[in-house]
Amino acid sequence: MTKQNYNSRILSTLVLILLFLSFSSFAQQAKYVFYFIGDGMGVAHVAAAEAYLKATDDKNGDGLSFTRFPVSGLATTYAANRFITGSAAAGTALATGQKTSVNTIGMDSAKVKPLETIAERAKIEGFKVGIISSVSIDHATPACFYAHQPNRGMYYEISLELSKSNFDFFGGGSFKYPDGKDGQISAFDIARENGYRITQTKKDFANLKKGDGKVLATGSVIESSGALRYAIDQTDEDIPLEDFVAKAIELLDSKKGFFIMCEEGKIDWAAHENDGATAVKNVISLSKSVDAAIDFYKKHPNETLIIVTADHETGGFALGSALTKYDSDFSLLKSQKISAQSFSALADSLFLMRRNQNLGFAMQLVEDYFGLGGISGISLSNYEKKMLEDAYFVSTSKLELGHDEEYVLYGGCHPLTAAATHILNNKAGLSWTSWSHTAISVPVFAIGAGSELFDGYYDNTDIPKKIAKAMQIIINN
Amino acid sequence: MTKQNYNSRILSTLVLILLFLSFSSFAQQAKYVFYFIGDGMGVAHVAAAEAYLKATDDKNGDGLSFTRFPVSGLATTYAANRFITGSAAAGTALATGQKTSVNTIGMDSAKVKPLETIAERAKIEGFKVGIISSVSIDHATPACFYAHQPNRGMYYEISLELSKSNFDFFGGGSFKYPDGKDGQISAFDIARENGYRITQTKKDFANLKKGDGKVLATGSVIESSGALRYAIDQTDEDIPLEDFVAKAIELLDSKKGFFIMCEEGKIDWAAHENDGATAVKNVISLSKSVDAAIDFYKKHPNETLIIVTADHETGGFALGSALTKYDSDFSLLKSQKISAQSFSALADSLFLMRRNQNLGFAMQLVEDYFGLGGISGISLSNYEKKMLEDAYFVSTSKLELGHDEEYVLYGGCHPLTAAATHILNNKAGLSWTSWSHTAISVPVFAIGAGSELFDGYYDNTDIPKKIAKAMQIIINN
Repeated sequence: MTKQNYNSRILSTLVLILLFLSFSSFAQQAKYVFYFIGDGMGVAHVAAAEAYLKATDDKNGDGLSFTRFPVSGLATTYAANRFITGSAAAGTALATGQKTSVNTIGMDSAKVKPLETIAERAKIEGFKVGIISSVSIDHATPACFYAHQPNRGMYYEISLELSKSNFDFFGGGSFKYPDGKDGQISAFDIARENGYRITQTKKDFANLKKGDGKVLATGSVIESSGALRYAIDQTDEDIPLEDFVAKAIELLDSKKGFFIMCEEGKIDWAAHENDGATAVKNVISLSKSVDAAIDFYKKHPNETLIIVTADHETGGFALGSALTKYDSDFSLLKSQKISAQSFSALADSLFLMRRNQNLGFAMQLVEDYFGLGGISGISLSNYEKKMLEDAYFVSTSKLELGHDEEYVLYGGCHPLTAAATHILNNKAGLSWTSWSHTAISVPVFAIGAGSELFDGYYDNTDIPKKIAKAMQIIINN
Repeated sequence: MTKQNYNSRILSTLVLILLFLSFSSFAQQAKYVFYFIGDGMGVAHVAAAEAYLKATDDKNGDGLSFTRFPVSGLATTYAANRFITGSAAAGTALATGQKTSVNTIGMDSAKVKPLETIAERAKIEGFKVGIISSVSIDHATPACFYAHQPNRGMYYEISLELSKSNFDFFGGGSFKYPDGKDGQISAFDIARENGYRITQTKKDFANLKKGDGKVLATGSVIESSGALRYAIDQTDEDIPLEDFVAKAIELLDSKKGFFIMCEEGKIDWAAHENDGATAVKNVISLSKSVDAAIDFYKKHPNETLIIVTADHETGGFALGSALTKYDSDFSLLKSQKISAQSFSALADSLFLMRRNQNLGFAMQLVEDYFGLGGISGISLSNYEKKMLEDAYFVSTSKLELGHDEEYVLYGGCHPLTAAATHILNNKAGLSWTSWSHTAISVPVFAIGAGSELFDGYYDNTDIPKKIAKAMQIIINN
């Protein structure tokens, strides 16, 4: 070989290496995006769910899927007009990259200008779009991705915006008020008119297949609130949240890419009732939904971005309580059989059915459903027994407390439920400071294309901007 | 130019570019390492301090220095034998990369085998080493970097290990029990024998200069616990924590590099008293200490690593309370004049001096020092007034509560202080679930050489291993 030939060879090899290095340093577009939002899920909810999984046999102690992601960040959540935010203002921040006032859906804080959402922009740019929630699909968080209303309570107006959104997939909860006021056309009918195929049973859901066009798939069991049941209350009759994610992937997977937002909305609801066992099981439900996304990511690791975050923390949740000090036993949460919400409904209906309401019967219910006290349950101290007795007497109006004291003790919940929940939570090592949201920064977990953008400490409005950057699109606000 | 020459030129240019690319992808050694530990500092403590800074004029609302770092992570904290850890077990994890049992200092969980610490390894590898704490320098967290004892309470033994450590700088708090039991030689004398220059005044501290050899610099005002005073209680007489960091940098800066661990230990102490205003001001004190490190980092950005983390969370702190729901006003914390600890001591001594103890006098103290009630203070609801009155009557033994109820309400604190602190915290929008540590994951903030290692969700034992990796050393455990 001549020297010239030799040099040329080396030269071309080097050029190839350089080209490779140059390309590999360019960010790959996030073509497939999963945006998971655990409503009300603070760092404590994540840590409690991990601790519960490690303390029990569930999932062989592997922990949550998303805490193993390589990237984590923390995001501030404040609203334009209140430091402790609400789901509408936080949802708008997470969907549009703009701060707004509490209760506002996808509009500026003066409730005048509609804001473009990342989902709308993704649709315009050719991505398929799916919106999933375990609460009603017109609830604040999902609504913020397709609707623009001055108040989150305008459910009918929001459901009409959904029907006309042209998004490719809606799944999970149903409409909260599909029929609006008297004489208005059902939002379901309007969705049908706009080309949506609607499924409401497990069978129809299972039969959904690629090419079916636009889909609105509600759960097979829907509460009066429009939501799916709590994970702890679900049976084989329910379609769990992860199945909606798997179905969205099946239907939306295409060369155009997709943007799927999935909210686990009932972590927040459970936390509003200070119901640790139920909140933890809904965090695990979120983790299973993320598993479905991870399965897809493994097939397209260079083009898939998965984000898991929260809109705000709910409850001032902590893994430690004044009563238990340094002790904890998260496996005790297993002794709670149903959600606090279901227990309240059950207790009320049983008391209505029984002629002789008495303390003994109430205590028996607490033993049966929370595993507390009695012969078979976890033993109670005199202090805890008195908490339950006081709660029973308050609920039967035999004991009256001051307004503030009663609210601090029971929030808006059934007093017996609140006392039982607090006692079981405390015994496990969990406690709460509030029945409302709090303003602690929320965690962000990320993996895949563009995930490096999500490191550090930033504001919630930065999150959709970072996602848009990874998708190589720009939200027009 | 001939084609051959032309090719050769391109070739050599390409080789240079390739060499540059190869070298730039190699990690630069962290030659100067700052390891800040906020004892008891959870995500909530950080968020509360940020919120306070933004709500007041302090520091022009810039927020904390370390939340602007590009990298953040979350770390689990559990001990080998308890899920809710203590400062000794957590300090050992952060210093040695190994889990141990609660109360054990730098030894394995069976309390048999001493563990090598990252500070000891750094010293062996030629780095200068500085250890700083705002609590006594023989307290659990700093001790874990130089001592190996089966129990954190063995202060004298720990202080002897310090004296013989050969580390270059110790600063902040003093020894807790320098004189041990009767007839033992003072730890100070042993330190002197081992070549330490000891300073205990502001003047001597200011005069310390490079070349002075090994230094043990205690605060100019030291509490009976051996600690510096709380930031909220400090005056011009005190040497603030950041001055110790600045002095350590001045003395240790050398071509050999350095490893400086600085603990802000009283965030934890304030949180154990559920004293939000005091905790927040000690988080700000930590932030100022980090500022000193940032100044150094700016001069050596490619060789400096700054880590800010915590050993565990204390108090189950939340930015939201049942009473205030969605409201908050962090600027109210300004009305607290002294720490809860100082208030308890003051109230006790004033009551001892006064012949006629009465409720009115107690309420006046609460007005004077917490800005609550009376003519000038923040107005109190009947519920809050009753909380204060009950606390006064419990403290004067005129009201007796059950053991559990009294502990939940007041922990181990002066009842009047605990009630006043809780009320002011609640009004600001802050609340607590525990008087002890909790098990929520703690934040990690990082900037500089090797900082990319600190992204994600991991265990506290990973932190010193990551630091060691950045320093290109290996801890031998």
